[in-house]
Amino acid sequence: MDATFTRQGMAAALLAGMTLLAQAQTAPKLPSAAETDPARLGWMVGSPPPAEKMLHFADGSHAKFPQFRWSFANWRQFMPSTDVWRGDGGPRRLERAERGDIDGISFVPLGQSEPMTWAQSLQANYTDAIVVLHKGRVVYEKYNGVMTPHTAHMAMSVTKSAFGLLGAMLVNEGRIDETALVTRYVPELKDSAWGDATVRQVLDMTVGVKYSEAYADPKAEIWDHVRANGVLPKPPGYTGPASSYAFLQSLRKEGEHGQAFAYKTVNSDVLGWIIKRVTGKGVGELLSERIWQKLGAEEDAYMLVDPDGVDFAGGGLNATTRDLARLGEMMRLGGQYNGQQIVPKAVVDDIQRGGRKSDFEKAGYKTLPGGSYRDMWWVLHNEDGAFAARGIHGQTLYIDPKAEMVVARFASFPMAANAFNDPTSLPAFQALARHLMASH
Amino acid sequence: MDATFTRQGMAAALLAGMTLLAQAQTAPKLPSAAETDPARLGWMVGSPPPAEKMLHFADGSHAKFPQFRWSFANWRQFMPSTDVWRGDGGPRRLERAERGDIDGISFVPLGQSEPMTWAQSLQANYTDAIVVLHKGRVVYEKYNGVMTPHTAHMAMSVTKSAFGLLGAMLVNEGRIDETALVTRYVPELKDSAWGDATVRQVLDMTVGVKYSEAYADPKAEIWDHVRANGVLPKPPGYTGPASSYAFLQSLRKEGEHGQAFAYKTVNSDVLGWIIKRVTGKGVGELLSERIWQKLGAEEDAYMLVDPDGVDFAGGGLNATTRDLARLGEMMRLGGQYNGQQIVPKAVVDDIQRGGRKSDFEKAGYKTLPGGSYRDMWWVLHNEDGAFAARGIHGQTLYIDPKAEMVVARFASFPMAANAFNDPTSLPAFQALARHLMASH
Repeated sequence: MDATFTRQGMAAALLAGMTLLAQAQTAPKLPSAAETDPARLGWMVGSPPPAEKMLHFADGSHAKFPQFRWSFANWRQFMPSTDVWRGDGGPRRLERAERGDIDGISFVPLGQSEPMTWAQSLQANYTDAIVVLHKGRVVYEKYNGVMTPHTAHMAMSVTKSAFGLLGAMLVNEGRIDETALVTRYVPELKDSAWGDATVRQVLDMTVGVKYSEAYADPKAEIWDHVRANGVLPKPPGYTGPASSYAFLQSLRKEGEHGQAFAYKTVNSDVLGWIIKRVTGKGVGELLSERIWQKLGAEEDAYMLVDPDGVDFAGGGLNATTRDLARLGEMMRLGGQYNGQQIVPKAVVDDIQRGGRKSDFEKAGYKTLPGGSYRDMWWVLHNEDGAFAARGIHGQTLYIDPKAEMVVARFASFPMAANAFNDPTSLPAFQALARHLMASH
Repeated sequence: MDATFTRQGMAAALLAGMTLLAQAQTAPKLPSAAETDPARLGWMVGSPPPAEKMLHFADGSHAKFPQFRWSFANWRQFMPSTDVWRGDGGPRRLERAERGDIDGISFVPLGQSEPMTWAQSLQANYTDAIVVLHKGRVVYEKYNGVMTPHTAHMAMSVTKSAFGLLGAMLVNEGRIDETALVTRYVPELKDSAWGDATVRQVLDMTVGVKYSEAYADPKAEIWDHVRANGVLPKPPGYTGPASSYAFLQSLRKEGEHGQAFAYKTVNSDVLGWIIKRVTGKGVGELLSERIWQKLGAEEDAYMLVDPDGVDFAGGGLNATTRDLARLGEMMRLGGQYNGQQIVPKAVVDDIQRGGRKSDFEKAGYKTLPGGSYRDMWWVLHNEDGAFAARGIHGQTLYIDPKAEMVVARFASFPMAANAFNDPTSLPAFQALARHLMASH
């Protein structure tokens, strides 16, 4: 999940942000990362925990801030899931070269004038866990709150990039025709928004569909989506779609396809449906076979599933920070890692080249000027050739090829839009990249 | 979970069994293991599966026979769970010494006159997976249906033995006083059946509590239990207890404590509550720290949890067959395994010595004459000193010290009572033990 940044959405988000900033100066400040540390707040501690420390799925308390700072490390306690097996090859060891000079790196956040240190940025971004690789070696690793090296964290929309990658691999193999209509694979979608959309439009999210991800709007379709697929509870008397597939079929076209980038989580779920139809495997199972088992992952990952057992391809991946870093290192190395070519180099190259910038520009992402979106990866088109997977509360896998750097970060930023954490994240990553390049 | 064999319960179960046997001769036979193979039946295959192959938690179809032959290998898809981490020490390798002469071993099932082979017994018992160790080496290993070496299977009441073991370890350490009243640790239970019961009575299940596990009776309290803890769906308009702890508090005393063995799953949940209160840790977390991380388990296990996040200590463990075998081998070796003393030898010795036979005899288990129950383990008191963990659909961890043999078996026997699969299981294990002893 990530916020929709249509022009209107962007305006609304900026307005919300400015309101919050205004409040921050006049009213109680947004509680800080330290104040909302989930270990300090003691969620779910006790037998039973006191009522005010209890998190329940049924009342949605698991999904509120600051409670979700605990839940993101424990989501499988709230809903059904399936295993993404790491295989039996044993972990690919990560060489360690940790260094003490990173916390003090200084940078100026976007739109501000005062500098901030790397260590301060972790707090500013409500970082739960972070692993930085340089030339494949761990130069920085930190766990906060209830996270540990072996804890899987809710990746949210980082999930999309994993399945965009699998989709692009299947296109590369000729098993999916990117120019074909979605309905060639999933005829059930013929009356939906995807009735006349192509697979490529799904992969690059240029489908015109009436579906808003403006989280501040309780009527936005994202809320119907996560009720249908079981990420949030269905209210009493609920009569809407009871599964992911039913929800997708209910969505209608809005505008034209192929004209502009429009970030809509449902495209990833449509891609998941296509992948399952073509391969006969759940996307989590395929992720295990094609990626997780080959990476030398340290731990199993897991996928959240809907009431029909369908993986939430738009946001249901939960993985450890180190394994996310391994995935990033594999991408940095053109698909080759742990002694094998896991993803064809052509697929990684195509992602790095990015999508149509003109499509992306129309979406108005202020923190990603000149960027693009390809196969569900965000491409920055900066001087380092950086590209990223991004989840809505600051989860990210940021790959900087020029600096030979990979940042895997899980976070639980209070507001559901990367526009709020990008200002203290993107320049921090760039400063770290400069620092690592200069010192080697 | 296992059936309650009060005299009345036993009579009802035998009656049900005889009725089924009578039906089997006059009406369609009970479908065989081959006919109900979950891979062959194709549950949950498709995108989406056809309606008649779809299993849902909400309608309870996941928990019916033969559907549960699939569900037992996939239960986390239906409800919340927590991880039982295997640790980062890598797996304890199991040496292999497989031999081809086991399938043909012959034995006579209890109460029958015609012999049966070991291979036939696997079918007769609806075996999903089995690993046999002799002197620590794998002499036999087989996976049926949808099971694989890395698939965790629902262990049901095998769970109890794992937590009985942890409880006994805490008693051994002096952290729990077995002579104390349960209410010393959990005062919330003062008005319940456990108000005047001791910890030892809980550990050995001699508590008098109005709670029936006669699965054939839809009014038996076991059904209220699994609705309260979320293993089965709550019907619309449900107003009963919404958690494990609430359910336990609702149960009242029936008869006297300490007089007779009375198999009641709720005792294990009470033990789980005591353990959590004393250690401050969920039982799954403690199982990871104390056992799973030390065994050199190959895979993480997992625990099913209730809506409050409380582990289902009475039946919620899911583990791989090999890891269950490792647990058994550790018990066979007096608690020492993988280079360390995992469980004090005194604890294992005490379990092997068993409980009071006179208490056990009153429960009338026809297939376990002369047996006893100690710390939630079944002790056979046979010439080999065998003892076992047992789940209600034929899941078992059977340890034969004299034969230096461990059998870890997962099964999905159609009827919920080991009295039905014991006749083709216990003599098979004994015949295998004889065979292994003779050939070495």
